Amino acid sequence: MEKSAASSTPLLNDELDIVIPTIRSLDFLEAWRPFFQPYHLIIIQDGDPSKVIKVPEGFDYELYNHNDINRVLGPKASCISFKDSACRNFGFLISKKKYIFTIDDDCFVAKDPSGKDINVLEQHIKNLLTPSTPFFFNTLYDPYWEGTDFVRGYPFSLREGVPTAVSHGLWLNIPDYDAPTQLVKPLERNTRYVDAVMTIPKGTLFPMCGMNLAFNRELVGPAMYFALMGDGQPIGRYDDMWAGWCIKVVSDHLGFGVKTGLPYLWHSKASNPFVNLKKEYKGLFWQEELIPFFQSITLPKECTTAQKCYIELSKQVKAKLGKIDEYFLRLADAMATWIEAWDELNPSGGKPAVLPNGPAKHRF
Amino acid sequence: MEKSAASSTPLLNDELDIVIPTIRSLDFLEAWRPFFQPYHLIIIQDGDPSKVIKVPEGFDYELYNHNDINRVLGPKASCISFKDSACRNFGFLISKKKYIFTIDDDCFVAKDPSGKDINVLEQHIKNLLTPSTPFFFNTLYDPYWEGTDFVRGYPFSLREGVPTAVSHGLWLNIPDYDAPTQLVKPLERNTRYVDAVMTIPKGTLFPMCGMNLAFNRELVGPAMYFALMGDGQPIGRYDDMWAGWCIKVVSDHLGFGVKTGLPYLWHSKASNPFVNLKKEYKGLFWQEELIPFFQSITLPKECTTAQKCYIELSKQVKAKLGKIDEYFLRLADAMATWIEAWDELNPSGGKPAVLPNGPAKHRF
Repeated sequence: MEKSAASSTPLLNDELDIVIPTIRSLDFLEAWRPFFQPYHLIIIQDGDPSKVIKVPEGFDYELYNHNDINRVLGPKASCISFKDSACRNFGFLISKKKYIFTIDDDCFVAKDPSGKDINVLEQHIKNLLTPSTPFFFNTLYDPYWEGTDFVRGYPFSLREGVPTAVSHGLWLNIPDYDAPTQLVKPLERNTRYVDAVMTIPKGTLFPMCGMNLAFNRELVGPAMYFALMGDGQPIGRYDDMWAGWCIKVVSDHLGFGVKTGLPYLWHSKASNPFVNLKKEYKGLFWQEELIPFFQSITLPKECTTAQKCYIELSKQVKAKLGKIDEYFLRLADAMATWIEAWDELNPSGGKPAVLPNGPAKHRF
Repeated sequence: MEKSAASSTPLLNDELDIVIPTIRSLDFLEAWRPFFQPYHLIIIQDGDPSKVIKVPEGFDYELYNHNDINRVLGPKASCISFKDSACRNFGFLISKKKYIFTIDDDCFVAKDPSGKDINVLEQHIKNLLTPSTPFFFNTLYDPYWEGTDFVRGYPFSLREGVPTAVSHGLWLNIPDYDAPTQLVKPLERNTRYVDAVMTIPKGTLFPMCGMNLAFNRELVGPAMYFALMGDGQPIGRYDDMWAGWCIKVVSDHLGFGVKTGLPYLWHSKASNPFVNLKKEYKGLFWQEELIPFFQSITLPKECTTAQKCYIELSKQVKAKLGKIDEYFLRLADAMATWIEAWDELNPSGGKPAVLPNGPAKHRF
């Protein structure tokens, strides 16, 4: 088994965009400079468009605020969340690259157990460039790493693996807990460095966090839609979860893999649990109906692209989840609008589109 | 969520037997003395019964050779492998305890990254006494450990978990590779200590290795049958794999969990790859038909115990795998015989039985 990706990782800096949603000046980028400077950043400014977001010198970036989003998408801008980090969707949409890495602006460089700074992008790229193994569990974790392999008893016919669609990274320090757990365990910190990457098996859902996430935009970009949250919506903090359920169902259907584990970053600050509870509380019980829905969903054979899968998903959401709350009807519409916007900006099916008015590159 | 098991692990030394198959004197126990001496050992002497197996002083053990097995089981002894470590089955059968830990005699105490000796039993007991989470993936791994929990987005209705049936431990140094991989990578050693335990999701099969394995005998003992191998059989090195496929299907059906990960032990010596290839080679292609069989199997609702599940499995093996090779007809019979033997020695359904002629305790 060739393992070139594991032994010398290509930078992919002309194939990967970093998408950052933010409401503040991006001082956190100073910490990431050695790692992010070779890449192009797409910054999505949330909230008040008149606020000035400062980006440290030397980064190659384009920055969009909600005025830009409205200008580019027109009425279809309704599918982009306002006052919620789900606005990062716009970055996924207008990127011209094959890979996306998205990160929250309260995340910093973590250290591995030897004290070395972790290069999150290098690890995400390794994860994305090596196959996934969703059909059978390998007890020594990712078999494509150097120093490991498939163990005895792993079927040989499955050792080619499948293309990896998603690389889900983790967080040291502040774990990604829901509000009830935050309230019960205010002092808990994640200090355990688990030196592994693994494929989440086919048919198994997982809680996908948007803090430290990379994906192959060509394979599954249209299905990586962070659900409509924030201003005007009755729920928050489920945008990435929604995207995770959808992306897993779509990846399973299309025969792509989803990995989780390394790389870690350093999550610096717990968000306010009371604010979080207010955002989450409907989700905490809605979720009990959503999970069985996603666990039992089947997509027809005709759904051969992420777009087609996602349109089908939006229909099933409308038909089956509308009874929970009219929010899901709005969400289903937003999902359909998202695909329309995707197809408009990516007319050649995943190939990059030229934006109607061009990107607001290097505005500052 | 209570985590008593994680914070102070009970010894369970009156509830756990250690089962060791061997063909040689058990000098390796010296290394394990601080950890195994509080426990009762069941030693299964494989091969020539006239050979004397020495057990270091101070251990509490019973030892059975194939004459003992024939004496105890009569014609049903046909389900116990001869000249193969699958003979450990007999130890599972005659144990009177709730938990079994089984280990190969070429395995030694490994060290954790801090240099401390790893207490394998303590970790297996933690794994078995805390629930499993087979219905949804937790990205921070076993949520019942101290210092961690379920992450945001994990459905609250699933946080109770289910009883854990199996704890599958791993190996540092010599990885558990098949013969082709051994041949291709003779120098590969497993040096990566992955500090995690996780539940293998429902519906996902895994390659279960018998080197470092613990299970709840009351829950799934009758389904933990290492397939007939060794003398007179056309295949070897698939005994534990077979048990793993069966135990996973049965655990999934009965609503129990299977964990893998910690604890590590030190696997000292690679077995001969040429000998292994000879044993394995039919398995390497038979497996390609066996995996789809186990992936698609369904057990009827009436199968409410591990016994009933296993009898049903034996019937399906006979009906569907006999066409691969007549070996599978013999194996199906052995599976049925195994359950007969189990029921005879464990007449009160998992409760301990008195052996017909008493165990050969402390024979030396």
